[in-house]
Amino acid sequence: MADDGGLMAPAARPANLLRLLPSLPILEWGRRYDRDTLVSDLVAAIIVTMMLIPQSLAYALLAGLPPEIGLYASVAPLLLYAVFGTSRVLAVGPVAVVSLMTAAAIGEHAVAGSPQYWAVAITLAFLSGVMLLIMGVLRLGFLANFLSHPVISGFISASGLLIAASQLKTLMGVKAEGHNVIDLAQALISQLPNIHVLTLVVAQALISQLPNIHVLTLVVGVLATAFLFWVRKGLKPLLIRVGLNARLADVLAKAGPVAAIAVTALLAWILDWKGQGLRLVGSVPQGLPPLTLPVWDLALWQSLAMPALLISVVGFVESVSVGQTLAAKRRQRIEPNQELVALGASNLSAAFTGGFPVTGGFARSVVNFDAGAQTPAAGVYTALGITLASLFLTPALYFLPQATLSATIIVAVLSLVDLGMLKRTWAYSRTDFLAALATLLMTLVQGVEVGLVVGVAVSLVLFLYRTSRPHIAEVGQVPGTEHFRNVLRHHVATSPRLVSLRVDESLYFANARALEDRINDLVAERPALKHVVLQCSAINDIDASALESLEAIDHRLRDAGLRLHLSEVKGPVMDRLQATEFVARLSGKIYLSHYQAIAQLSPEILTSSTAQRQVNQGGA
Amino acid sequence: MADDGGLMAPAARPANLLRLLPSLPILEWGRRYDRDTLVSDLVAAIIVTMMLIPQSLAYALLAGLPPEIGLYASVAPLLLYAVFGTSRVLAVGPVAVVSLMTAAAIGEHAVAGSPQYWAVAITLAFLSGVMLLIMGVLRLGFLANFLSHPVISGFISASGLLIAASQLKTLMGVKAEGHNVIDLAQALISQLPNIHVLTLVVAQALISQLPNIHVLTLVVGVLATAFLFWVRKGLKPLLIRVGLNARLADVLAKAGPVAAIAVTALLAWILDWKGQGLRLVGSVPQGLPPLTLPVWDLALWQSLAMPALLISVVGFVESVSVGQTLAAKRRQRIEPNQELVALGASNLSAAFTGGFPVTGGFARSVVNFDAGAQTPAAGVYTALGITLASLFLTPALYFLPQATLSATIIVAVLSLVDLGMLKRTWAYSRTDFLAALATLLMTLVQGVEVGLVVGVAVSLVLFLYRTSRPHIAEVGQVPGTEHFRNVLRHHVATSPRLVSLRVDESLYFANARALEDRINDLVAERPALKHVVLQCSAINDIDASALESLEAIDHRLRDAGLRLHLSEVKGPVMDRLQATEFVARLSGKIYLSHYQAIAQLSPEILTSSTAQRQVNQGGA
Repeated sequence: MADDGGLMAPAARPANLLRLLPSLPILEWGRRYDRDTLVSDLVAAIIVTMMLIPQSLAYALLAGLPPEIGLYASVAPLLLYAVFGTSRVLAVGPVAVVSLMTAAAIGEHAVAGSPQYWAVAITLAFLSGVMLLIMGVLRLGFLANFLSHPVISGFISASGLLIAASQLKTLMGVKAEGHNVIDLAQALISQLPNIHVLTLVVAQALISQLPNIHVLTLVVGVLATAFLFWVRKGLKPLLIRVGLNARLADVLAKAGPVAAIAVTALLAWILDWKGQGLRLVGSVPQGLPPLTLPVWDLALWQSLAMPALLISVVGFVESVSVGQTLAAKRRQRIEPNQELVALGASNLSAAFTGGFPVTGGFARSVVNFDAGAQTPAAGVYTALGITLASLFLTPALYFLPQATLSATIIVAVLSLVDLGMLKRTWAYSRTDFLAALATLLMTLVQGVEVGLVVGVAVSLVLFLYRTSRPHIAEVGQVPGTEHFRNVLRHHVATSPRLVSLRVDESLYFANARALEDRINDLVAERPALKHVVLQCSAINDIDASALESLEAIDHRLRDAGLRLHLSEVKGPVMDRLQATEFVARLSGKIYLSHYQAIAQLSPEILTSSTAQRQVNQGGA
Repeated sequence: MADDGGLMAPAARPANLLRLLPSLPILEWGRRYDRDTLVSDLVAAIIVTMMLIPQSLAYALLAGLPPEIGLYASVAPLLLYAVFGTSRVLAVGPVAVVSLMTAAAIGEHAVAGSPQYWAVAITLAFLSGVMLLIMGVLRLGFLANFLSHPVISGFISASGLLIAASQLKTLMGVKAEGHNVIDLAQALISQLPNIHVLTLVVAQALISQLPNIHVLTLVVGVLATAFLFWVRKGLKPLLIRVGLNARLADVLAKAGPVAAIAVTALLAWILDWKGQGLRLVGSVPQGLPPLTLPVWDLALWQSLAMPALLISVVGFVESVSVGQTLAAKRRQRIEPNQELVALGASNLSAAFTGGFPVTGGFARSVVNFDAGAQTPAAGVYTALGITLASLFLTPALYFLPQATLSATIIVAVLSLVDLGMLKRTWAYSRTDFLAALATLLMTLVQGVEVGLVVGVAVSLVLFLYRTSRPHIAEVGQVPGTEHFRNVLRHHVATSPRLVSLRVDESLYFANARALEDRINDLVAERPALKHVVLQCSAINDIDASALESLEAIDHRLRDAGLRLHLSEVKGPVMDRLQATEFVARLSGKIYLSHYQAIAQLSPEILTSSTAQRQVNQGGA
């Protein structure tokens, strides 16, 4: 700050004003923008633009929209994200999974290709933008935690398979209807142990469609797919062997789709593929993104609310995880709740400029980062590049074969499919595996929305199941010390008159009943029991449910002629308990240390000779 | 066992067989049944029967069914519960809240009073029975944990208000339609701070209905209500003052409804109230419960699935909490999963004998307990009593005024309403208060099903919010010791090169991202940082989501030139981590003790003089 002190003086007043907007990241990086940064950002922008053009066309088609809508959705959102976003390198625009979810959501309300369909897409972007903004303002970013990793991976893998399957038709030039999702899912289930399942599924789908195939389309599609796979796996090592440095080789490899598009479009023009029945993209309107408005129809809003929410949350999770990974590489950070605001603004801008739901894309953000983007200004230049493309490049898209775009999509999404994840999760945790599998199968069979909702429900139920059995150890005194340890693991002294329980978790609604059950059982099993002492050293919180459970336990113990005591209650927990009637009504006392409790209630444990001790051994 | 050894010998073979059914409680108490127990059980059964007759008639009307259905629902379920139930004293039958939920569920499918309505009620009992059985066999009792205490109290209070409001019409002899639920809710909301809200609501409802009131009905209804309230509050002290012992006085006071019914029925007969327009119960078919079958209609089953599930869970929660409380008083115990089986069997039997959904009732179980019931055989005798009543007593019910039954219901359910709960919960926990309030209001305004579902959703969201911010303490060395403590609370030694974090909770999907955020922030803030050490002494579990978060953290730290270390990982957690690639790939090491980690990574902390130490103070 010292070197531009002279410049800062006259700006003092606006700076005061700007303090009201402390969270606007553009104010931070914008002030220090210089020539070097400009060059870095420009280079990155050119590379990302080249990558984004085919992607945005393809994802618009995937969402059931005309290809130019993809370009529209890649301009304003990038600008808005540059203003509000906290990631330096996140590239916002249409992405595969969100496009699939968009298609699923709109499909129920309009026919693909109709003006209504576009209007619903705009409305969906609007609703998603509003929801993201609200979540950001209310700091509800934590809601994304509902999507556990197994659910996300199951969902993303299933989405990848669904998208790939939906593109096979275009790739083969088949006119037949339907995605054949059930067949795909059945094939998948039966082949789960087989790691080469994808090859088989693709082969089976190909064979079943054999009679309807348009051969030229199939040849172009398969060659384009093979080329793109090769570009992904083989081109980079080749370029490095030829002598290019690794980063440049990587960037060139990422530009492969542009080459595929240019070459196939050129061939289609020269060889008149259209005349031979190969489907081309056709005429794409030239011009700037239009100004549009969402449909103001409350009934439509209501039925789009759930899909919009799911799209928002999935987009947010994808975007934040990319953003965090890239930010950490440069020791920068992103602010999740501010990201919600930025993505909300991006989606709103998409809605007002003829676009559809967008979010931060993984591949293009990585490219942006690797190409050296320093600030969100790179996004602004990318938006400029896309604008130029939609002004001048669209006539060249006339000859682009749709099969090439399908190939682009297939290659992109198959990298998302990770069925090995099921195997790894199974090895680590059976409950997490169940959640992942349920999400995967339900998404394949019932679609993206049901899959996601079922996945969340399953993981919540399993979570509740796990936490409904907190670790409750019966403890005894380590002879000669003031320490107490699990009776199942250590030689410790106990008494039939008193039982000491240590709960190793906070008490709340999911596990409070387990404590009730445990104490009820102990009381029923041990007729000589007079005192129950809860060692509360590991309890960080007691919610209202658990408080009622403790009251019920105390009440029942008193009725049965026993007393309930607490020991080692943490300060904050004690403060809250003091405000209730529980402490005043408690049948027993609250002790500072567990040792004090035992010394007063059952001193024979502490003074007993070895012969009198009831010593437990080993086990569990 | 020693004293009946002679008798046991010939029974050895069947006893072996019975071992196959170890969970059938009847086999345990049935074998030791003697004369004393018989007498105790019979006395209790007579008293419970007297209480159950008016209740079952009233709750059938509340569910929208003819009164005799209430008697039908009080026979077979009691028998089945006696065989399968683990509580010695639980009295199963129609209860208020479940009857209200039944009315709400059936109301969407049939007109009250029609044969279809009864058929749907039977189907609902069937589905609820099947669900309870399945939950019991799969040991899903933990699902009831989804209903936190605040949600249950909000729901029960709102149900009480709804039921009372629904009975005002009958009490006043009004012909007008509708429960006026919205008005009631609005009045409630506007009057929440006022503790006498109930009086006002009732008064307002009375006034608005003034022109339609049937005066004689109103007089009978109000007098019956007043009498029953007096019986509840004033009769017992009076009887004790007169010289009765407390238990008998209590039992007599509980029999008040029978007196109200007998007296008003007698007056109706003598004074020909029917001729004056007062509505009577009318002719009730005489005879045993009929054999019935549920409707086999998959579409109906589907739409009844959600209500049946909610009825099952609410019934189970009510039943188990009563059962546990009463069992604990005699140092007995109940087995929640076996209770699911027992309630499932009870509901199935209700479905096949013309009944409707049932569960364990609070008031009648307490009466059963107080009257000295020793075994579930008391339930069998009660079932016999109800059978006799439905065979011979039904003609006497002809003259029973409906207003008396409404008075019975109102007095019973208003004791469930506990708006003071809101105040107490507010004082203890704001989040729990929100859950209770949301459940209460949504139940009043949108009905029982929406209320319950919203309540569960709100409490889950709030729970996730709480746990999404685990307690993560930065710790430093207590100088001269091997102990590490929170830097905000103690004078401890730290280093700018290394940060030690202690996570005070298990890591799982809801809080894993918070750890990512915290570490990202630390790395961005402290440029000199080289090592992050997680002290894992309080981590009992790491789920797959948290494992992926740890991998992401490690990956990002490595990219930024830092290393991640763990210390004091618990045995079971370490065993699971060893099976993953995380340990092999970890940028840092895993240390047995945190002290060892610091000694190796940043020994200057341990050896530094006071001058070099970065000592933190006080705060938070």
